[in-house]
Amino acid sequence: MHNRHIKPIYNRSLLPPDQRDRLDVVLVSPRNPLNIGAVARGMANFGFVRLRVVAPFAEHWREARSAVGAPELLANAAECATLAEAVAACTLVVGTGTLTYRKAEQPVVPLPELAPLLAAEFARGGRVALVFGPEKHGLTRDDLSYCNVLVEIPTDVRQPSMNLGQAAAVCLYEVAVRSAQAEPAAQPASSTAPSGSLDRLAELIEQIMSAAEYSPASMQAANRHDLRLLLRRLHLDAHDTRRAMGFFRRVLRRLMRPRP
Amino acid sequence: MHNRHIKPIYNRSLLPPDQRDRLDVVLVSPRNPLNIGAVARGMANFGFVRLRVVAPFAEHWREARSAVGAPELLANAAECATLAEAVAACTLVVGTGTLTYRKAEQPVVPLPELAPLLAAEFARGGRVALVFGPEKHGLTRDDLSYCNVLVEIPTDVRQPSMNLGQAAAVCLYEVAVRSAQAEPAAQPASSTAPSGSLDRLAELIEQIMSAAEYSPASMQAANRHDLRLLLRRLHLDAHDTRRAMGFFRRVLRRLMRPRP
Repeated sequence: MHNRHIKPIYNRSLLPPDQRDRLDVVLVSPRNPLNIGAVARGMANFGFVRLRVVAPFAEHWREARSAVGAPELLANAAECATLAEAVAACTLVVGTGTLTYRKAEQPVVPLPELAPLLAAEFARGGRVALVFGPEKHGLTRDDLSYCNVLVEIPTDVRQPSMNLGQAAAVCLYEVAVRSAQAEPAAQPASSTAPSGSLDRLAELIEQIMSAAEYSPASMQAANRHDLRLLLRRLHLDAHDTRRAMGFFRRVLRRLMRPRP
Repeated sequence: MHNRHIKPIYNRSLLPPDQRDRLDVVLVSPRNPLNIGAVARGMANFGFVRLRVVAPFAEHWREARSAVGAPELLANAAECATLAEAVAACTLVVGTGTLTYRKAEQPVVPLPELAPLLAAEFARGGRVALVFGPEKHGLTRDDLSYCNVLVEIPTDVRQPSMNLGQAAAVCLYEVAVRSAQAEPAAQPASSTAPSGSLDRLAELIEQIMSAAEYSPASMQAANRHDLRLLLRRLHLDAHDTRRAMGFFRRVLRRLMRPRP
């Protein structure tokens, strides 16, 4: 039986498998085993399998993985010490959260507008991370400095904060259902440098700052944060990054050379 | 800071309050208090407040309502004995579920295509029910016979069945975010008869069947089921229903008149 009043605008296929496998779900220090299980189940519902967990609470993580009926992807989840490590291979890192309690330092994308961005990234052969913070306070300012964009789920101002399992389900639904159909956003065709190589570049620049006595030690943390944000804003591709590394390595060597 | 690459297609407003108040979330015999709480929280996140619960398990329902931090809408939720009663005032009853385990007897709408239908219904001044079945088996065939359409969340065939709280969050996100922007589906402009008046019409027709000895008693349940589906398929408006009632009342009176 079919409803003749409905014009089909959607063809029932989820994201193709080769694209789904290029999306990592990253949980930063999740606490409640039920929430971890719910995120994993939501991933399985929408066909995603790559889960990474950053610095989980050991006991809760063990409990979540050993729960009856836990999806297989939980057993295969990678455990990482830091967010930088978890997203090192990703070319687009998407943080999640609400703006109700913070001011964003990176571009904000409402969830209903995320699909064209992801479609462009997948078309370029990139790898995407979708990052969720701990239940209590969400992603910190430091976590977000590893993100290229902050995606916001539009919620009611009186109750903006979503449960972790439900937020993940809503984001994965949107990604699975809409990215396959979306017109890719107009963006540079070349592939962006992965997060890890930006980190290596940042480290090198920091060494130069230090060697050149660019700023007092008390400013180091703030400079590191700003540099991380800046490098992500520049949309450097792999080639840009390699050249910059060569240049800055040379500069550093010269700076370190013993004076005559 | 703004991402110049993103063309805004979405204006951040959720469904306007007068439309949100014309959507009832209906839970049929929910079991897990955590799931009930999660549905309520998801409703609050997307600005919905009207919750009805059909034949809940008394103890679990009490526990869910008295949970610490339970949203106010749980305290205000209406309790109904039957699904028919819960949706009596609604002009569009939307059942939820997966088709993996069943064959639908009513039109099936993938969730990403639901918005134009709801937009049309709201534009006509109608009232919508979004109905979720019990955790274990979902809505029964009998429950679904009260639904005008069955909405299906597109999920992976290997893990089609969603957690109740996550399914509700995904549906409410879609409704809250997309119905406000959707082009209303081309449908009759007149308002559909509410579910309760179709039930009264069906009851009258059943009395006639019985008075006319239309079929053996063993067929009554099947006839009742088919009649319920048929009346929902006809898109009768309030005027149609009143006329049909008048006609069938007359027929019944004649049938019941003692023979000379």
